[in-house]
Amino acid sequence: MTLNELQERLQSGNFNRWLDVRPVSVEPETVNLEMVVREDMLGSPITGAAHGGIAAALIDIGCAFAWLAHNRGRIVTIDLRADFHRPLMPGIISIHGALVRSGRSIVTADARLTGADGRLCASGRATMKPYLETEVEGTNALA
Amino acid sequence: MTLNELQERLQSGNFNRWLDVRPVSVEPETVNLEMVVREDMLGSPITGAAHGGIAAALIDIGCAFAWLAHNRGRIVTIDLRADFHRPLMPGIISIHGALVRSGRSIVTADARLTGADGRLCASGRATMKPYLETEVEGTNALA
Amino acid sequence: MTLNELQERLQSGNFNRWLDVRPVSVEPETVNLEMVVREDMLGSPITGAAHGGIAAALIDIGCAFAWLAHNRGRIVTIDLRADFHRPLMPGIISIHGALVRSGRSIVTADARLTGADGRLCASGRATMKPYLETEVEGTNALA
Amino acid sequence: MTLNELQERLQSGNFNRWLDVRPVSVEPETVNLEMVVREDMLGSPITGAAHGGIAAALIDIGCAFAWLAHNRGRIVTIDLRADFHRPLMPGIISIHGALVRSGRSIVTADARLTGADGRLCASGRATMKPYLETEVEGTNALA
Repeated sequence: MTLNELQERLQSGNFNRWLDVRPVSVEPETVNLEMVVREDMLGSPITGAAHGGIAAALIDIGCAFAWLAHNRGRIVTIDLRADFHRPLMPGIISIHGALVRSGRSIVTADARLTGADGRLCASGRATMKPYLETEVEGTNALA
Repeated sequence: MTLNELQERLQSGNFNRWLDVRPVSVEPETVNLEMVVREDMLGSPITGAAHGGIAAALIDIGCAFAWLAHNRGRIVTIDLRADFHRPLMPGIISIHGALVRSGRSIVTADARLTGADGRLCASGRATMKPYLETEVEGTNALA
Repeated sequence: MTLNELQERLQSGNFNRWLDVRPVSVEPETVNLEMVVREDMLGSPITGAAHGGIAAALIDIGCAFAWLAHNRGRIVTIDLRADFHRPLMPGIISIHGALVRSGRSIVTADARLTGADGRLCASGRATMKPYLETEVEGTNALA
Repeated sequence: MTLNELQERLQSGNFNRWLDVRPVSVEPETVNLEMVVREDMLGSPITGAAHGGIAAALIDIGCAFAWLAHNRGRIVTIDLRADFHRPLMPGIISIHGALVRSGRSIVTADARLTGADGRLCASGRATMKPYLETEVEGTNALA
């Protein structure tokens, strides 16, 4: 997928558009995206950090796009794990997604979120079910 | 915590306010919340279902409020696991949070998300670090 | 599956036989097993508790048998999550496995481990891929 | 920790001794161990592969030793995630443990298991609570 195609794909989903995740680069088995943490994404007025759900969403997106950037089709998350290492403060977050194991029926990928200061803020993993373009019609995800 | 206090707490965070999660009832070691899946929460125009990040956020919230509803202080998520069983379609989602093990330094809770048809859509677990009110000042979460 | 069939199935695997897990009862969507923590299962001479790998193995077994007790075929674990709440001390451990969502291509189950004093020691979840008996021949797990 | 000290530590636990995990090398923030999959570790006579509990135990060990190899004290696993990518067949398994985030109260590490053919068989992550040597006396893990 080219960066333009990635951008189009990211913009086609309503919540992705709200998050405003943008593509940065695509390399073999990996993808780099970024997002700006805004005021309306904060979890609590005390910490001033993004809500954990935002970090979890970015990990899910980083994992899914690690596959989508290199395949034609769609992918459904079966389960997700997110580890919160440091607060995601307002500003740019870099999202690095990398395939761990890309099988025909199960895909596993990791994602790492890094703050503007280059420190790891959150990381995690998704187990996903891929549907290659030729299979997409007629499938019934997780039926 | 009374329902009013829960509601105030939920409304004090910007992203929680965007999600518009509302309290339904508090019982020993559990809490019930609800949220309406809106158009701007959808993941993809093909499935018409909420983004996985929305489900993950609700599981995080259900787990945190299972503790917050019964304790005075704040709680930080260390890690989160989410399983996606069925699509979260537009409409009301019931969120049930329940404590699994409430220790002094580690709290584990489960959350279940149920659709308007009563079917389980997603479920998961958070490992969290609690700060009781007397400890909150001066603590440095996850330092 | 009857208790005799469960016992036979548990004894057919070498490591399960080493663990010596035994069936206790089968109820709709759940199964109860038990195992005795022995000296050769201990993790460290300081704690005197079973190794975390023993607890993880029991959670994997509890989840798999929650499905196996009610279906003919075999099941492969895709991923496993285990939470360690309290030390598993020498003595009898009760293993309760329960189906959370039993789909055609993905099965999710929970397991809980309880000590002789009735307290929860560990709990967790497995995401699994089922192969019903009619499908077993010719399948290539996770290919 | 030197390789001799690692070996001594690995041999001090009964189940680790049964597994017979051996140290290979220690590098900054990582550790390499190995183990031979034996007949008595097999999960099922049909697959001829090691039980999932063996893989989970090795991931737990790889994560714990990624910290232990570089610190004096002990470490307790709070939760563990294991992903099973391919069967662990009889023969040598290489275990690579790496720190992801080493905090004062929470340590996160990843582990990867590779077969004799160099292919990734399983991988996972542990969230752990460290006790530095000076703190070990008088602590009450996960109290």
